Amino acid sequence: MAVSRFAYVRNFELPDPLLPGTFIVVRLDGQSFHRFSEVHAFAKPNDERALRLLDHAATDLMDQFSDIVLAFGESDEYSFLLRKSASLFNRREAKILSTLTSHFTASVVFRWSTYFGNTPLQYPPTFDGRIILYPSIREVRDYFSWRQADTHVNNLYNTVFWALVQQGGQSTSEAHATLKGTQSKDKHELLFSRFNINYNSIDARFRKGSVLVRDSQPASTTDASDAAPSVPTDAAISKKSKAKIKPAVVVLHCDIIKDEFWDGRPDILAG
Amino acid sequence: MAVSRFAYVRNFELPDPLLPGTFIVVRLDGQSFHRFSEVHAFAKPNDERALRLLDHAATDLMDQFSDIVLAFGESDEYSFLLRKSASLFNRREAKILSTLTSHFTASVVFRWSTYFGNTPLQYPPTFDGRIILYPSIREVRDYFSWRQADTHVNNLYNTVFWALVQQGGQSTSEAHATLKGTQSKDKHELLFSRFNINYNSIDARFRKGSVLVRDSQPASTTDASDAAPSVPTDAAISKKSKAKIKPAVVVLHCDIIKDEFWDGRPDILAG
Amino acid sequence: MAVSRFAYVRNFELPDPLLPGTFIVVRLDGQSFHRFSEVHAFAKPNDERALRLLDHAATDLMDQFSDIVLAFGESDEYSFLLRKSASLFNRREAKILSTLTSHFTASVVFRWSTYFGNTPLQYPPTFDGRIILYPSIREVRDYFSWRQADTHVNNLYNTVFWALVQQGGQSTSEAHATLKGTQSKDKHELLFSRFNINYNSIDARFRKGSVLVRDSQPASTTDASDAAPSVPTDAAISKKSKAKIKPAVVVLHCDIIKDEFWDGRPDILAG
Amino acid sequence: MAVSRFAYVRNFELPDPLLPGTFIVVRLDGQSFHRFSEVHAFAKPNDERALRLLDHAATDLMDQFSDIVLAFGESDEYSFLLRKSASLFNRREAKILSTLTSHFTASVVFRWSTYFGNTPLQYPPTFDGRIILYPSIREVRDYFSWRQADTHVNNLYNTVFWALVQQGGQSTSEAHATLKGTQSKDKHELLFSRFNINYNSIDARFRKGSVLVRDSQPASTTDASDAAPSVPTDAAISKKSKAKIKPAVVVLHCDIIKDEFWDGRPDILAG
Repeated sequence: MAVSRFAYVRNFELPDPLLPGTFIVVRLDGQSFHRFSEVHAFAKPNDERALRLLDHAATDLMDQFSDIVLAFGESDEYSFLLRKSASLFNRREAKILSTLTSHFTASVVFRWSTYFGNTPLQYPPTFDGRIILYPSIREVRDYFSWRQADTHVNNLYNTVFWALVQQGGQSTSEAHATLKGTQSKDKHELLFSRFNINYNSIDARFRKGSVLVRDSQPASTTDASDAAPSVPTDAAISKKSKAKIKPAVVVLHCDIIKDEFWDGRPDILAG
Repeated sequence: MAVSRFAYVRNFELPDPLLPGTFIVVRLDGQSFHRFSEVHAFAKPNDERALRLLDHAATDLMDQFSDIVLAFGESDEYSFLLRKSASLFNRREAKILSTLTSHFTASVVFRWSTYFGNTPLQYPPTFDGRIILYPSIREVRDYFSWRQADTHVNNLYNTVFWALVQQGGQSTSEAHATLKGTQSKDKHELLFSRFNINYNSIDARFRKGSVLVRDSQPASTTDASDAAPSVPTDAAISKKSKAKIKPAVVVLHCDIIKDEFWDGRPDILAG
Repeated sequence: MAVSRFAYVRNFELPDPLLPGTFIVVRLDGQSFHRFSEVHAFAKPNDERALRLLDHAATDLMDQFSDIVLAFGESDEYSFLLRKSASLFNRREAKILSTLTSHFTASVVFRWSTYFGNTPLQYPPTFDGRIILYPSIREVRDYFSWRQADTHVNNLYNTVFWALVQQGGQSTSEAHATLKGTQSKDKHELLFSRFNINYNSIDARFRKGSVLVRDSQPASTTDASDAAPSVPTDAAISKKSKAKIKPAVVVLHCDIIKDEFWDGRPDILAG
Repeated sequence: MAVSRFAYVRNFELPDPLLPGTFIVVRLDGQSFHRFSEVHAFAKPNDERALRLLDHAATDLMDQFSDIVLAFGESDEYSFLLRKSASLFNRREAKILSTLTSHFTASVVFRWSTYFGNTPLQYPPTFDGRIILYPSIREVRDYFSWRQADTHVNNLYNTVFWALVQQGGQSTSEAHATLKGTQSKDKHELLFSRFNINYNSIDARFRKGSVLVRDSQPASTTDASDAAPSVPTDAAISKKSKAKIKPAVVVLHCDIIKDEFWDGRPDILAG
């Protein structure tokens, strides 16, 4: 049973380095989450437990992989930005993609009961992932603007939709019909006039999504309770002595489309 | 906040179809499992609970994805063979890789307590994955021969090594020194003469690894208890009515290097 | 002016090995050949000088690169098959693609006057190329069948079309109208009844395209005059002593869809 | 002979788009040019006819493909820069690589006699090519600095080397020995003291290589004679009416490492 006789099959493992000098975005998406959210009776339009659970898993990733400099989450998806000079796993595509997907999934399943308490996990959620390279800062900014604008559009729709159903007594198909063709302004107006809800007073978590950054400042105004300790591994343990000076990951729910966020954190997009 | 203004960033998501007409192997490997096994006090040289847990997660994958026609597991790694004509996710590389890695990881974490009972999971295990394409049957056969030959070589070494340590009273460095330069024959002899162990009488699970196939036969002689029901998802549910005729996944611990295994299962390598 | 300071830019040159164990097809296509053929007053429907010129360039390639085991040409395109075990340039995709394209183009321009005599080359023809991998013999066979079936369909159409125009006095748009909706059988019939042409008696070169193989036999019945000596290069020169036993490349115009061609030349598809 | 039955083989032609938003460099290299230059008795250390021939072929490429905004040539190699927003052939890698390689090769062979007069072409030269993507301006600048620094280092060495051989009566191995371990300063000194040659007075063509840009200015001080009319093609012809306002390609032999060149031509690196 000579291993060597068969070892030639390794020659079929081809190299897959990502282009140097580019920003790496890894986006993870929940699979079949419509059903998953029904089975586990998620609150509508947003389940804060689920959002906090994913924030925690994303924080775990940032604690584990220092090349991740920013993360943005909404609904059942999370995007991670690796710095332009990232050298994680020598920028091997499959290694980065599979490891981050696995680590995120593992954290979500592991931490389920922390957020869902007595609601048992019927079956574990799964995620798919993809890697996208962006050559310049402009495109990275626009990528995250795209995701946050998407958050806004979806959340506004869902907020009105579920108000119509839960408080307005409409069926789901009636609610869809009511909203058909409405503009953003109309939805704001409808929310306020019929349900006395000022959309802008809704929790920023739902309107803005979750923004994870490292912060060396005491993050008193931020949702720092989410910045949980990372999953320990060999690598993490060996760096324990430096842990005190490592900036904590904080979860924000702020605007990332305008310049202010980026101007205050030049390290994220730095070379 | 027009989503459309930013949507051009989607153009950076490039297509990644795998070459048609090739066998797809997905190999998952545990990350930092040396430390993971110590933290969770795995039995040496093999922890049957851990092996059965991974078998279960692999079974879940095969139940979920009908394009997987064979799986082989040893230690903390698992290889999955997708049929040559597989059309899963239109053969998109990142989608296949990330989904299978996520699903396997999720199952392992989810099913931990089934196999480890009162031993709590300190932190969740993670896996990385890679995809390898093989154009012909010869290479697929040799790939699985390579993994099983590796299983044999490692397990023989580890069996003698831990006998020397656990029963022979050697330190680990003494045990390594004892084994240095020994041939396979010497190790068999040493095991028998000093510890009265006939290597070939050791559980086939340890010597041969785990071989997962679909079997429409009642698999009375196989380890069918491992063929657990799959994680339910939308797709799985919608096919429930066909479930009765779907062949169950069975876990074998048999030789896959010689022809017999393959001759009896022509479907695995069929076009 | 230290070169070393800038040499990091080489890190952006990424590896591009082609999957081992697959057949490599390189297909070259003339660019804007409609115009090229008009400027150089090609005979219609086929210009034998042009076809022989491309055959010669293809022969040059086969003389130069021993990994090419078969070539097929029709109109302004040529396909080259590299053996499954080809190791040319370590199977680097860009190197193979660019070198073969360059070599073919160079030969065509260089040998122009040999075939076109006093017709001066107004501007040089150019070709684009692509590489396609085929995992199995079946697909390789079908690829070449596809090209030869295409040759047949196009040539039958063009033969009738130009007969209608050149001998039948139709305008080109009248000829297209005449042929609209006709089947293969109708075209044969039309050719024979109106122009007394038996399609099958037309030169096989036009009906079947050009098939280039290596032949150790004295190729008395084949178009061996096309098997010109290769362009000499360092590599070729160093092998000169073996030249006598190197099989000559011969140009055939035979069927490659049926089994006979392949059965008689098992080396082409051999491992 | 149904084409359709075989057409599935087209599914093996996989997409190969280059990442948007990146600068594309195509570098072509002469193959076996040592032998080629000997067979055609090139002057040493530089053959101006050969350099002008390649400049002409590069000019042809720039005339043909408007996405090429800069080219740099030295010895038997040429690099072409495509603008960041280039959409040539929808950025398909194989199409761009093969077409540019073919076009350049064709021009070199076609224009041989214009530069080499009565020296017949014994066999045609060939080139290989590669594509490299650069995400940012810094890397593009450094790439061209790398090539020009390489030009300098090689030309200084070759100039002294051939002076030692041609004027100093040394054998080639003696000349190599003389130069072993010398610094740039030593070579300048040796040239001047033994052969009364001031290196900086040597033709800038040899010291700086060839730099091709588009220039809407009347290029009176540049080597505009090289800016020959392009090879006409369908595309070129159809644009003929705009030809008068199309900036001509000019051949310079100037420094491209310092800022001055780039500061005066902001269009080259513009988005």
